[in-house]
Parts: sequence; C-alpha cells; structure tokens
Amino acid sequence: MIRRVAVVGGTHGNELTGVYLIKKFEQFPALLRRSSFETIVLLANPEAAASNRRYIDRDLNRCFAQADLANPALTTYEDRRAKAIVAQLGPREQPQVDVILDLHSTTSNMGLSLLPSSRHPFNLRLAAYLSALYPAVRVCCGVQCDQDTPLLRSLTPLGFTLEVGAIAQGVLDAHYFQQTEQLIHAILDYIDASNQGQPPPAPETLKVYQAIASVDYPRNDAGELHAMIHPQLQHRDYEPLHPGAPMFLTFSGETLPYEGENIVFPVFINEAAYYEKGIAMVLTEKQEMTIPNEC
Amino acid sequence: MIRRVAVVGGTHGNELTGVYLIKKFEQFPALLRRSSFETIVLLANPEAAASNRRYIDRDLNRCFAQADLANPALTTYEDRRAKAIVAQLGPREQPQVDVILDLHSTTSNMGLSLLPSSRHPFNLRLAAYLSALYPAVRVCCGVQCDQDTPLLRSLTPLGFTLEVGAIAQGVLDAHYFQQTEQLIHAILDYIDASNQGQPPPAPETLKVYQAIASVDYPRNDAGELHAMIHPQLQHRDYEPLHPGAPMFLTFSGETLPYEGENIVFPVFINEAAYYEKGIAMVLTEKQEMTIPNEC
Repeated sequence: MIRRVAVVGGTHGNELTGVYLIKKFEQFPALLRRSSFETIVLLANPEAAASNRRYIDRDLNRCFAQADLANPALTTYEDRRAKAIVAQLGPREQPQVDVILDLHSTTSNMGLSLLPSSRHPFNLRLAAYLSALYPAVRVCCGVQCDQDTPLLRSLTPLGFTLEVGAIAQGVLDAHYFQQTEQLIHAILDYIDASNQGQPPPAPETLKVYQAIASVDYPRNDAGELHAMIHPQLQHRDYEPLHPGAPMFLTFSGETLPYEGENIVFPVFINEAAYYEKGIAMVLTEKQEMTIPNEC
Repeated sequence: MIRRVAVVGGTHGNELTGVYLIKKFEQFPALLRRSSFETIVLLANPEAAASNRRYIDRDLNRCFAQADLANPALTTYEDRRAKAIVAQLGPREQPQVDVILDLHSTTSNMGLSLLPSSRHPFNLRLAAYLSALYPAVRVCCGVQCDQDTPLLRSLTPLGFTLEVGAIAQGVLDAHYFQQTEQLIHAILDYIDASNQGQPPPAPETLKVYQAIASVDYPRNDAGELHAMIHPQLQHRDYEPLHPGAPMFLTFSGETLPYEGENIVFPVFINEAAYYEKGIAMVLTEKQEMTIPNEC
C-alpha cells in the first residue's frame, strides 16, 4: 500500500521541465490528488533554480550518500539542502514517503527515460506498464541501481528518475513538458488503482538498458578535451554501437572508434553536465527481464 | 584592402564551438594563415569559458556600447574584459583590425546563420558568396545592424557574428564545429582572393532576414513565465509564421496565437540565454537585396 508519493523537480536548477512542473503543481494541487494516497511536491534546489544553474556549490544529486548526510562538516548550500530534504522525506531507515519521482532533463537524446530507484518488483511492473502504454518510454538501470547511492531518488527503493531529452539547459520544451506531465499522471493513476487492489495489466517482460560502464572524452595530459562525440554517434542514444564504429572525432578531424568487443547501447551521449564528471556517455547492455509475479 | 582579421570565440563562455575552435587555432595557427593579411585569434571571455558559464558578472556581448567603454565606473569582470579587447582590437575610431568574426552558438534551430556587423557592401557581397557556396547559410540583420551597438562585432563595420545551432549550452557538437570551421576558411579564402584583386563571383542578390521586433514570453504580474514556446513553433526558425498561428502554450495547455497582421519569420526561438533578457523570439521579415556593385 502506497501512502505518500513525492514529486520532486529542480534537483538541478537549470532543468526547467521539472522546475516548472513543480510550480504548476504548487499552483494547481488538485492535479496530483488521488483518492488512496497523498502526493507532495518539492522544488529541491530553489537557489539553483533562481540562478538558472545546475547547482550553487555542488551537485545536489550527489549529496545523498549516507556518509555525507551524516557528516556535519559538509555545509555547502547543497549539503544543507540535502539534509533538509531528508528531514522532509525521511531518512532511508524511516522514510516519510513511499515513492519518489525525481524530474530531470538531459541534453542527450534520451526521449522519455525511466531510471528506477531499485529493481524492486513494484518499479519493474510499473515500468513495464508504462512501456506498454507509451512505446517511447525506455527503462535504464544505473550501475548502482540497487545500492546506497548519492542520488536523491535513492532515499526510497520505490520510484524513478524521469530523464527527458534532448532539452538544452535553461530551456522549456513544451512537447516534453506535456509528455512528462502525462507520465506523472499515468504513474499516479497506476498507484491509485493498485492501492485499490486493481493494478492495471502490465506485460510480463521488460526491456531494460543496464549501465555497465561510463566512457570519458579523450583528453590530453592537462585533462583538456581533444575530441568530441562523433557526428555519427551524436543523438543516437539507445541505438546499438558496434565494435569499430565511430565514437569520437578529434579536433583535427581524426575518427576514434569504439574499441570494445561487444555491441553496447550508449545513453547520456554528450550530456552537458557530465563534461565535468568525466563522462562522455554511459554504455549499457540490453536485457530482457521477467517481472516477478507478486508485487 | 584587408590587413588584419580577428577570429573571436568564447565571447559567451558556455558556447563551446567558439571556445574550442579558438583553442584549435591557437594550437595550429597555420590553419588561419593566408598570404595577403594577418589573422589573430582571441578567446574573449576566458574566465567565463573556464567556468562554463555565459558570463561571470554580465553579458560581455552587451559591454561594447561607446558610453560604457568610456565609463571608468564600470568595473565588472566583463567591463574590464571589454576594455582590454578594445585595447587589442582598437577603438571604433581607430581600429587595429579590419574584420571581426565572432563565433557563437544558440539553442535555437538557426543552422548556420551570419549576422553582419553592418550593411556594408563588403559584408553583403561576402554573405551572398557564402549563401551560394553553402545553401544552408542564412543571413540575419539585427535591428541595430548599422548603429552603435553593445556587441563585440560592432567594433568594426566589416565582419559577422556566426550563430550556429541548435546546440545546447556547454555542449560540443562535432557537426557544427566542422561546419563553422569550414565557413571560417571560406571567409578567409574569399578575403585573400579579394585582396589579390580576384574576388570570387557572387550572386547579385541576397536574401536577408531583417529583425523588426522581439517578443517576450507571456508572464504574470510577478514577471514569471506562464507559457512556453508552442510545440508547433519550436525548432521552426526562419519559417513563415502566419497571423493566428500557435505561438505559445500556457502551462495549463492553452494555445496563444501570433496576433500580428503580417507573416513574419521568427529566429532565436527559445534561446536559453534570452529568457533573462525578456526575448522568446525575434521576428524578422524576409528581404531580397541587390548587392551594390563596388565593394
């Protein structure tokens, strides 16, 4: 039984889809009202949103590791926000909400992506339901999908990051704004029906893109880029990348191939915020999962 | 006779096409070498580029108004940079360079756009030549095309802003990186041939998109957005917008039409950096110009 759902946006202040959906929901709370549970909304990083920046001091979505939350010496704006959010949503061992939906956007061409907080059967069945309802939906599991991670969504095992794009930072895209809102409503309706013992039918299998590694840009000894995403790979998130296929293009025009031995499916290709994290893309492998019966 | 050309990038620190082209040209200066003139390269806002932000204190590309340059009380980082750049490129009344090419990118879908520094016949003929060479090139004149403006490019009457997109801020797009570089080489080759008395043939007419007005987002009394670019207008830069056609979509889903009486051709649709400037798009009208003979 789900009692409380948190819809969170603006964890990154320049991802405007989430920021403005939260503003809309704050103005029209009836939109999120369902009979069997309560929904709360949260603008996670208001200072960053006001400044139209991803963060003020450090990435809020890397502040939720257990050790950091317990460390009183961490006092940046985002560390203080993380602690305030935990005070509101509850710590992992005593959550005050059952489900967290964290609304993000990406400059990568990832369409409508669901990143589940864990492989809990509830998440998988809901993801399978949404994939059947909206064929554009894709499900992507992080490397740390089942562990303690520094991500906001990891405060509860149930829920997702919604990652939509390609959307430039600081830009509102009406198409994706509407699609994200539609997805939120579908999730709330599903939870409501499930609470009432009538979970909508969902496929028994689910296609999951499981992250296996990240790849950094080629850099020189000083750490500066010396290549970009190859034009033939740009915008090709979730498409198969074959061994030997173009991966990077150096500034001098030389093509650097993918040197792995297996076909992979890159995501987060050319995400603006990941340059500083040393991530040019995340490689995934495609898995067909069977949904456990009881969930 | 052109003696010196300045190729400028990173006027906005998060427009990486220009930043990395300048780095490339600094590493391989021979690429810009031509026999009849000198080319200098300039990373205009190094602090903003290092921080991956448009600017530190204020928009450098609004710091070149004559009055501001003469005002010793203006001491923000960008004001000081503007004065340093004028010291290097020369003031308007005594320029040290003849042509300025200022490399920008935009989140709007403007393809390869040339924004001439003035309607000088040299600019128009060169633009006509480039439009014929690359059919994707479009020429867009600002409202203040012939006046004292706060733009860096306005330090010399000859030259262009190169505005390429859609590219998200903080992202390198290899396709546009290569196209921008190709355009720079074509411009330098043209100047070299002209200097030697053999200007390449160019069409006698030129299609110009002349800015006539800018349009802000619909906002509430507190100045906050209450609508976004309509999905049917998004990405449609340079396409005709008819009276009554969808222009904005409110967060509640209401379509707001274009209320003008004439067909216009919007550009800078949904440019991320223009939210704070109160510009949702710039309306242009299409003009067919005849190139003056002697230039």
